[in-house]
Amino acid sequence: MSKNNLQLDENGKLKHFLGIEGLNLPVLTEILDTAESFTSVTERTVKKVPILRGKTVANLFFEPSTRTRSTFELAAQRLSADVLTLNLNTSATSKGESLLDTIRNIEAMQIDMFVIRHQDSGSAHFFAQHVKPGVSVLNAGDGQHEHPTQAMLDMFTIRHFKKDFSQLRVAIIGDIAHSRVARSQIHALNILGAAEVRVIAPKTLLPVGIESLGVHLYNNLEQGLKDVDVVIMLRLQKERMRGALLPSEKEYFNLFGLTQERLNCANPDAIVMHPGPANRGVEIESSVMDGPQSVILQQVTFGIAVRMAVMSMTVGR
Amino acid sequence: MSKNNLQLDENGKLKHFLGIEGLNLPVLTEILDTAESFTSVTERTVKKVPILRGKTVANLFFEPSTRTRSTFELAAQRLSADVLTLNLNTSATSKGESLLDTIRNIEAMQIDMFVIRHQDSGSAHFFAQHVKPGVSVLNAGDGQHEHPTQAMLDMFTIRHFKKDFSQLRVAIIGDIAHSRVARSQIHALNILGAAEVRVIAPKTLLPVGIESLGVHLYNNLEQGLKDVDVVIMLRLQKERMRGALLPSEKEYFNLFGLTQERLNCANPDAIVMHPGPANRGVEIESSVMDGPQSVILQQVTFGIAVRMAVMSMTVGR
Amino acid sequence: MSKNNLQLDENGKLKHFLGIEGLNLPVLTEILDTAESFTSVTERTVKKVPILRGKTVANLFFEPSTRTRSTFELAAQRLSADVLTLNLNTSATSKGESLLDTIRNIEAMQIDMFVIRHQDSGSAHFFAQHVKPGVSVLNAGDGQHEHPTQAMLDMFTIRHFKKDFSQLRVAIIGDIAHSRVARSQIHALNILGAAEVRVIAPKTLLPVGIESLGVHLYNNLEQGLKDVDVVIMLRLQKERMRGALLPSEKEYFNLFGLTQERLNCANPDAIVMHPGPANRGVEIESSVMDGPQSVILQQVTFGIAVRMAVMSMTVGR
Repeated sequence: MSKNNLQLDENGKLKHFLGIEGLNLPVLTEILDTAESFTSVTERTVKKVPILRGKTVANLFFEPSTRTRSTFELAAQRLSADVLTLNLNTSATSKGESLLDTIRNIEAMQIDMFVIRHQDSGSAHFFAQHVKPGVSVLNAGDGQHEHPTQAMLDMFTIRHFKKDFSQLRVAIIGDIAHSRVARSQIHALNILGAAEVRVIAPKTLLPVGIESLGVHLYNNLEQGLKDVDVVIMLRLQKERMRGALLPSEKEYFNLFGLTQERLNCANPDAIVMHPGPANRGVEIESSVMDGPQSVILQQVTFGIAVRMAVMSMTVGR
Repeated sequence: MSKNNLQLDENGKLKHFLGIEGLNLPVLTEILDTAESFTSVTERTVKKVPILRGKTVANLFFEPSTRTRSTFELAAQRLSADVLTLNLNTSATSKGESLLDTIRNIEAMQIDMFVIRHQDSGSAHFFAQHVKPGVSVLNAGDGQHEHPTQAMLDMFTIRHFKKDFSQLRVAIIGDIAHSRVARSQIHALNILGAAEVRVIAPKTLLPVGIESLGVHLYNNLEQGLKDVDVVIMLRLQKERMRGALLPSEKEYFNLFGLTQERLNCANPDAIVMHPGPANRGVEIESSVMDGPQSVILQQVTFGIAVRMAVMSMTVGR
Repeated sequence: MSKNNLQLDENGKLKHFLGIEGLNLPVLTEILDTAESFTSVTERTVKKVPILRGKTVANLFFEPSTRTRSTFELAAQRLSADVLTLNLNTSATSKGESLLDTIRNIEAMQIDMFVIRHQDSGSAHFFAQHVKPGVSVLNAGDGQHEHPTQAMLDMFTIRHFKKDFSQLRVAIIGDIAHSRVARSQIHALNILGAAEVRVIAPKTLLPVGIESLGVHLYNNLEQGLKDVDVVIMLRLQKERMRGALLPSEKEYFNLFGLTQERLNCANPDAIVMHPGPANRGVEIESSVMDGPQSVILQQVTFGIAVRMAVMSMTVGR
């Protein structure tokens, strides 16, 4: 079964949301348009709609995450769903239960949607392959594979500020090799028809075969930023420093840290994005993060609307 | 005060739900019938009824539990109650506060029901003895004493598949000595009038004096399963292996693991139950667990309806 | 910007609730009167009002707390708010994110109120200085600075039992030096016009310059209790024992523990209060804690109404 078929039902509607790869332009556009309609909800005095009333969303977090978990909880609450949040690194699985038994058991509690974050690539697909018909699975980050809601909130942010993808040059900067976010972003930008997608990173942080996704590679930040409209920074996982991949935070900042001076190589109206949490002074200078071109906090806000959109499209079908 | 009086009010209605021992046939039947009415709720599009709206349920878990805690949370949410979940192995009690002070203080927050799981036998009774009139206590497992909602969801499952208890032979298999579930099940089966209750276990895992509950003992699995209609497996606590009680997981499986071949000793339409989480390949073979006679996942689903029933009967009186 | 201005809007209405210092009699009276109206809500069958429906309250607890966190959660739920509770000692901040970035990011999730408990004095003010207009901050305890909702529930309790502050002698007993509760109480009693405020403690547990707050100092419990109408005990942090400040629990109890005999030095109708959790046999004798003059559990109940009052006054403006 292709990934495409797994995510879409017989009418081409979104059934699970596992990754951007394999989706098509109408579906991504529907996500963005539906999210648009929810931005007005989150600005109202009463930030709540009854779309998922009486539905149950189970947040299964096998990896700790304050921020992503919170946005999924809030999105579900604002759709009036009941929410069950389980931090599963400990209890159930420490009793030696398999992932499949965990799925089956929680599903038997009449869950309508699983939101899953897991350290293993492919785990969201595994869930989707094994849940009952009518239950939806939403990937909140699986290993180094995909993080599709993050990518879609990034796309929403880009569309909000730049309108038309077809004229845009987008640069993704940092630890591409270990980033599920970057993979999802590249797929989404390709589907939405961005004019050019660049990845900028030291050679040790570029995955083998990344060119096959149609991106242009740069190992020099200034050169890569030239004529760019959208600058997407990635979080540098400090764990990488301990291995042989990077010499030091300081040297990384010297070569690949986004300073205002370097940002000036991009188009003057370029926007700066970051999935958070950012390491100030490592991958990005504080003044850029807080500067006029940064739309990093808007990303967080739009993230709720995008998650509400995907939840209502899948569960609310 | 007898346990009976503690659980029932002057009209014989359920006030607390602490254990099956001391309850009577009308009360157990009312629980099963009320749960029956809630199974339709959990199958609706909007899985929610307003029965406990504006009531507060406090889940006090002194022992960690993902699964049981989740089903109580969902049951309370689907009755529209407000839910406060406290994992108390750490904070309050680590400040040296006594159990009684914890009860008094949380009760002063105008709680309508305590759901309590605690490693000490008798702790739920202790709660019930000390809460104010009008506050209900629900035992979610106390030490090696009782786990009455688990037993009632088991009874619900049996009634669902077998209708009439009076013709049934039921076998409970495994670590009877350390199982609060087994104790509650035996009491419930006796009250509901099961034709015969058998316990099957190695001698080291049988409690002294268990015959006084009217059960028949077997130390041989094949013999014990003969003519049985309902097979209830217990979870083997791996901690037991470390003591002198059991030689090894492998040897346990060789003697007491439920294989399809052994299951064939029971009646052909016998159902297989397990409170979960199961140790595949230790107390039960995977193919039996996933096979056509297994009703293990239905148990989980029925568990929500049974907990909704007990909550609405006690708090909603 | 004065603390007063930070907490009040241009119409003198409460915008944040950070500390008692700098507030005035009309505001404190409004809090008490509003809480009064909510006590009837918490006694109803349906303990819920729709005042904050569709609003989101984020509970940020950088210090662990079962009890205080629970009362804030319940207060928000009973006002029909959506609640997001984050225990932040671990995840986000362990990723090296600054407090300001945490504020900005959670605020971007369209939060209407932050409830914050933090080990650093001044952290609630820091939050209030940095949130967007329209977002309220409620101090649930910051370092050794203030714990204003605790003080207001104490004032509510005093007014409930004693009506008129102007005739009252109030004694605060124990570890004044390290108590954010005591500081808030002293400010509140001064503003509400208590006739006399005494602090009773060993010299090592009295902060330098406490007299400037207009309190009378006593190092002898019997003398300090003479003619007193309200006895407020503080929790003795056992950590203090490890330092040089106190010889032993036993000696502390011998000199400063509240026994019935000592309580008899106060007025016969004096009430005894404690913010909890109490160390029985250290700062207070069990029989006093459970005796007829103790109003300790009423404090907990009133605490919910007071927190509902402050939440509705600030967010619901």
